[in-house]
Amino acid sequence: MKNFVYSQPTEIVFGAGTHQEIGQRLEPIARRVLLVYGGHSAQKSGLLDRVRRSLEASGIHWRELGGIQPNPRLAPVEAGIDLVRRENLEGLLAVGGGSVIDTAKAIAAVAPYPGEVWDFFCGKAVPQQCLPVVTLLTIPAAGSEASDSCVLTREQDERPIKKGFHTPLIRPRLSILDPTLTYTLPAYQTAAGGVDIMAHVLERYFTREPDVDLSDRLCEAVLRTVIAHLPRALEQPDDYSARAQLMWAGTLAHNDLLSAGRIGDWASHAIAHQPSALYDMTHGAALAIVLPAWMKYVYRHDVARFARFAVRVWGVEDDFAAPEKTALEGIRRTEAFFASLGLPTCFSHTDIPYSSFGKMADLATANGSQTIGHFAELTRDDVYEIYHLAL
Amino acid sequence: MKNFVYSQPTEIVFGAGTHQEIGQRLEPIARRVLLVYGGHSAQKSGLLDRVRRSLEASGIHWRELGGIQPNPRLAPVEAGIDLVRRENLEGLLAVGGGSVIDTAKAIAAVAPYPGEVWDFFCGKAVPQQCLPVVTLLTIPAAGSEASDSCVLTREQDERPIKKGFHTPLIRPRLSILDPTLTYTLPAYQTAAGGVDIMAHVLERYFTREPDVDLSDRLCEAVLRTVIAHLPRALEQPDDYSARAQLMWAGTLAHNDLLSAGRIGDWASHAIAHQPSALYDMTHGAALAIVLPAWMKYVYRHDVARFARFAVRVWGVEDDFAAPEKTALEGIRRTEAFFASLGLPTCFSHTDIPYSSFGKMADLATANGSQTIGHFAELTRDDVYEIYHLAL
Repeated sequence: MKNFVYSQPTEIVFGAGTHQEIGQRLEPIARRVLLVYGGHSAQKSGLLDRVRRSLEASGIHWRELGGIQPNPRLAPVEAGIDLVRRENLEGLLAVGGGSVIDTAKAIAAVAPYPGEVWDFFCGKAVPQQCLPVVTLLTIPAAGSEASDSCVLTREQDERPIKKGFHTPLIRPRLSILDPTLTYTLPAYQTAAGGVDIMAHVLERYFTREPDVDLSDRLCEAVLRTVIAHLPRALEQPDDYSARAQLMWAGTLAHNDLLSAGRIGDWASHAIAHQPSALYDMTHGAALAIVLPAWMKYVYRHDVARFARFAVRVWGVEDDFAAPEKTALEGIRRTEAFFASLGLPTCFSHTDIPYSSFGKMADLATANGSQTIGHFAELTRDDVYEIYHLAL
Repeated sequence: MKNFVYSQPTEIVFGAGTHQEIGQRLEPIARRVLLVYGGHSAQKSGLLDRVRRSLEASGIHWRELGGIQPNPRLAPVEAGIDLVRRENLEGLLAVGGGSVIDTAKAIAAVAPYPGEVWDFFCGKAVPQQCLPVVTLLTIPAAGSEASDSCVLTREQDERPIKKGFHTPLIRPRLSILDPTLTYTLPAYQTAAGGVDIMAHVLERYFTREPDVDLSDRLCEAVLRTVIAHLPRALEQPDDYSARAQLMWAGTLAHNDLLSAGRIGDWASHAIAHQPSALYDMTHGAALAIVLPAWMKYVYRHDVARFARFAVRVWGVEDDFAAPEKTALEGIRRTEAFFASLGLPTCFSHTDIPYSSFGKMADLATANGSQTIGHFAELTRDDVYEIYHLAL
């Protein structure tokens, strides 16, 4: 178990109806804000209007930046920075999922900084201060509502690249999680969000670090919760309990609780980022394709851990004489579960051609100059193989 | 699942050797502090001297308040408040376990307050401000290093009474958890501390609230971790992994993570506080006696939950046809586990006479004017029965 520092200051306000409190909760943090949101659903459902009324009732002055797309880009961030500077806004209110929140975080970090947005993403500079970010979450998935990270996509050398940065300064000050807001999520987004949550846990679970029993068990608890409740939410979209377990699981999966004392893998995220960047594929769907392939490619690095995963998470009966059989059954169940959610589990289910695998393997490894992953270090050729395994 | 607010701002610095960083970690928080500590062990082990050297090296000015006893009393709190005011100190550094930390918290809350210490404990007033508290934990047990509560004992009507109060203001700003400091803990304190940790989880686990699957599973994860690692720590006191799992479990058991969306029971704490207050019994030992008796008395209120506890926490094979049998086997295993740690599991193992049960039942329920517990509401007579069941 590694030494670690754990700090999780984001205040969470959780429960049915809590979204109505946004104005009064936000007011002590910032009285002049940029309201960032996504597409039509928040408008159509009336959520945005309720948010506006709540802000108005609390005497908050706001400007709006709407239309943020999945796999968010640089342009709206730059527009948001202009608005914040011009209107002298003090904070960000993100109403949406991970893309909206990440856009708000990027604006919050860059607005007080004189350089370029991309400086933080490419490691050229480190944020020194940041406007406060408050979120009203509508999609349990990215965990951005309590995380210290932010991911954007930009064009570079005529190719879109997807990159992120971390700093405790962009952890939201307050996040409101109201599970009833997720009743209207389309099934596909519910499913992809669930896989994203599971991926955040799995990236941490598959570690080389020994003696991390407590965080292993906490990971298993979150995974089993998602596995139990995601199918219920798909079957009965207004099942409050199922929606609530998923929403809280999404936050705990990515707020660093499950990282305590361990180094995660994170290769699957790097591998899955490429089809999202190049083909605008939903992040959770890309992960549903990549994770089983990654597992098949790397499980021999620690068969015992994969056997534990099979037994503790999937309830596979341990074949004590053949741990590899147990391990493989866990991987099979993972893939079957993703398929049962209606998600693609291989690239042939999508319109991404295998001819793109070389380019994606290049992008994931900086043209082969970097390895990715900690559970197993993967070269460009390994990544290429994994894309093929996922065909 | 109830609506909830979750806020856990305590920064945790965890790992071997981290206690050496106390000066540099404390310096940005307070440069004039009251160092609060307990008995001889921190002095004898050289820990206090290392702390003093670290404070000196970081240019921190400090005064000392030593000799804090288990089940801490009012007098040292008053002495500490005098010192803080007289010396114009800015913060508290607690080096020790729950008693030392709770003493520091009480000083931190009362020093800026013009009234009496006990005002907060009897609900006459609510803290409005609080000096920052930093802890260097030496006993994994009370969870006070990241909790918002503080418990003291005072004489009232010629009887000692033990009371606590809660406020987010006394949550420590920073806690340093170095598992190597616990290598020298006596076996009895290690065991009693482990039971205290389990009790914090069990008080939350036994709830009437339905649909709290995720926090149930997290509770089970922490309980299984303690059950797996506590015997290892007793067998091999310098087993780093076992000590580390216990220490982190102790923090997570009581930092409100496991309370999300549920109301706990807490009757066992109220029942166990009386033998501690009257006979100075170690808190964890009192809980080892009270918890099994409480379980036997209340399990019929929710046999299914006790059966789940037996199967998921103790690995009892489910007797599907007779859930009560499964439930009882879980209680039997709990009691057997406490006994295996060398702790008393009934009052006849101690010098507490059954003639005191009436007085203790009175004290636990304000002379029968209050009920205690939420999983099962217990009257004065119920509590009296539970003391007898624990005989």
